[in-house]
Amino acid sequence: MIYLDNAASTQIHDDVLESMLPYLKEQYGNPSSIHRYGRLSRKAIEKARKQIASLIDAEPSEIFITSGGTESNNTALRGIATKHSSGQIITSSIEHDAILEPCKKLSQDGFDVIYLPVDKFGMTDISDLKNHLSEKTRIVSIMFGNNEVGTIQPIADIAKLCHDHGVVFHTDAVQAIGKVPIDVHELDVDLLSISSHKLYGPKGIGALYIKKGVLLNPMILGGGQEHGLRSGTENVANIVGFGKACDIAKNNLNENISHMRKLRDILVQKVSDEISQVTVNGHPESHLPNNAHFTFLGVNGEDLIIKLDEYGIAASTGSACSVHTQKASHVLQAMGFSHEQITGSLRLTTGIFNDQKEIEHTVEILKKVVEELRSVSPFKEKYSFSKN
Amino acid sequence: MIYLDNAASTQIHDDVLESMLPYLKEQYGNPSSIHRYGRLSRKAIEKARKQIASLIDAEPSEIFITSGGTESNNTALRGIATKHSSGQIITSSIEHDAILEPCKKLSQDGFDVIYLPVDKFGMTDISDLKNHLSEKTRIVSIMFGNNEVGTIQPIADIAKLCHDHGVVFHTDAVQAIGKVPIDVHELDVDLLSISSHKLYGPKGIGALYIKKGVLLNPMILGGGQEHGLRSGTENVANIVGFGKACDIAKNNLNENISHMRKLRDILVQKVSDEISQVTVNGHPESHLPNNAHFTFLGVNGEDLIIKLDEYGIAASTGSACSVHTQKASHVLQAMGFSHEQITGSLRLTTGIFNDQKEIEHTVEILKKVVEELRSVSPFKEKYSFSKN
Ligand SMILES: Cc1ncc(COP(=O)(O)O)c(C=O)c1O
Ligand SMILES: Cc1ncc(COP(=O)(O)O)c(C=O)c1O
Repeated sequence: MIYLDNAASTQIHDDVLESMLPYLKEQYGNPSSIHRYGRLSRKAIEKARKQIASLIDAEPSEIFITSGGTESNNTALRGIATKHSSGQIITSSIEHDAILEPCKKLSQDGFDVIYLPVDKFGMTDISDLKNHLSEKTRIVSIMFGNNEVGTIQPIADIAKLCHDHGVVFHTDAVQAIGKVPIDVHELDVDLLSISSHKLYGPKGIGALYIKKGVLLNPMILGGGQEHGLRSGTENVANIVGFGKACDIAKNNLNENISHMRKLRDILVQKVSDEISQVTVNGHPESHLPNNAHFTFLGVNGEDLIIKLDEYGIAASTGSACSVHTQKASHVLQAMGFSHEQITGSLRLTTGIFNDQKEIEHTVEILKKVVEELRSVSPFKEKYSFSKN
Repeated sequence: MIYLDNAASTQIHDDVLESMLPYLKEQYGNPSSIHRYGRLSRKAIEKARKQIASLIDAEPSEIFITSGGTESNNTALRGIATKHSSGQIITSSIEHDAILEPCKKLSQDGFDVIYLPVDKFGMTDISDLKNHLSEKTRIVSIMFGNNEVGTIQPIADIAKLCHDHGVVFHTDAVQAIGKVPIDVHELDVDLLSISSHKLYGPKGIGALYIKKGVLLNPMILGGGQEHGLRSGTENVANIVGFGKACDIAKNNLNENISHMRKLRDILVQKVSDEISQVTVNGHPESHLPNNAHFTFLGVNGEDLIIKLDEYGIAASTGSACSVHTQKASHVLQAMGFSHEQITGSLRLTTGIFNDQKEIEHTVEILKKVVEELRSVSPFKEKYSFSKN
């Protein structure tokens, strides 16, 4: 199998699994228990918290563990917004559903939500943001790197603009973490969401960075874990694994980025060279190093994925983090793509475990499959596809 | 180490870990992905959902996966209450913090919360409930088995009474699951919370049973997983483990219950026989089969636990599912215990991996430790403890 869906989820690193096993076997204490079993679990969590903090240059006390990126995003938005009874929320039109859906709910609850448009590369315009910021703005949430087309927003500039207006800024960095160096102090963000399973860690665990002094209402209440921000018996093994994944990511950040980018660039180059009538989407420079997003005119992306799957290649049409696979991509719509362009889209995302041979093999198969699908395409006449 | 804190958390069953490993290794697909990797994860989740459903005689479509008992409780309470803008919530005074804290929040949000009192055994009075039920009651939530003293409430009777008044009924069955046969149709509850890590499954995963037709607002919004009730990429490995844990629990329910009860009864008998001035708390008949809760007069429970820990015995003063270990138990307070009685309390909870020799050894150590502590107790004169 050639796995090129690393934006959807990643393989757990062997050393990560290794680090988790004691907590799935003999070290099963509840971290709130006073006895040795409990204390060992507590200690393991605090070590992981340091590792997570270290990857983004935060203080361990600024890291709050959640069940994943979705919960982190919900906690950030609701946690800040509900400190007020009304007001404005500014986000972008290309956010993940884990931002858009809580925004929709907050809008039903009486908040005014502004969705900033993006250009054809998926880039927001900072002057748009500036025009909307007011004393009514409760929070701005703009994603770091887009999960479909990979476009990276100018986070530091956006954070600065928000702070100039005294507004709290959150960024969904679920796709960016481990693929871009992130220093929360340099960026000066207030809140930042990350998720373990995009980073070669286990699923169902994530974190919300909360800058010291920023206060928000907790969502899940109970025993008071995570300093009251997130109650519930801690998922010790997954937290330990997440910590280890962050540690590995930090120690290999530059090599990993180079590796993913190199494979991604070869892929984009070869596909552009060898397949006709294909476009490469997302921002030409400011993009995640592992994201390759194509439109193959006249091809249905879902058919493409199913064909690729038959050849042992795992790919995606866009977001896999949503169960509404049928729904046309709101990201590509916001970028002004036509229905036909949206239909023909394919996302291939490289990861640390891929190699160049896999990429070359993928291009061979892709050529063949695109040709096959185009030969039976209803758009055959319209585009008179040249044989690749 | 002798682990007698099974109410706080349990050791993962070997077969459970075995079942999880493929999903921590090669089967890392995102369940929302269309390719084979994704489909394998999806299939694994649906198998687990059947196993979870089967343990409580529910339909798989009535099982919604959450990150644990705390989230299940929050989802149930908020999910029902927020369908209304105000009204009444009835619960008991001995609930877990994962019920009490969301109730406190709902009370701040304008709901009227009634906390039913309990008798000295920790039992609610159904006529109290009856007196409070009205057309303003939005939800009643009464726990199945108490996490500190083990008292089991008459859940079927309570459910019936609620339904006679057209009121939705939720029960927190986190401590009861696997220790009491639970058939949701027989009990006729509307909502029921369970958690994997009390049942020899992994931490950080749980479920909310929602009877077909009962509607509630989701709390965590995003990609629409769990039929929109609980968004976020699924924690596949933990879900699989939870499913397996339920399967094992179902297949061994009667033996497990007998085993835990036998050890608990031996423990209670021996402690009562061999140590003076000790009381056994909780309901004399209607209690969880694995819960032994004692008061040793003149002893500080925390000192006791630390001493026991030195001898390799893991015990608890009460709830370990709360990080506020300092706080005096609200459960024992509600049962009318004096401060001195609360201070002297010790909870020992048996599990399927304990054996009789461990229990006998524990009683030996306990005798010794209680004697030691009493010999330096400030209450020494008051009670003139007889040498055990
Ligand atoms: C940009 C982005 N935000 C949030 C999420 C949700 O995170 P999680 O899968 O941990 O719930 C995802 C992917 O799932 C994502 O790509
Ligand atoms: C009765 C009861 N309810 C809820 C919980 C919370 O469940 P979880 O630990 O899965 O968050 C616990 C224990 O932690 C409990 O004992």
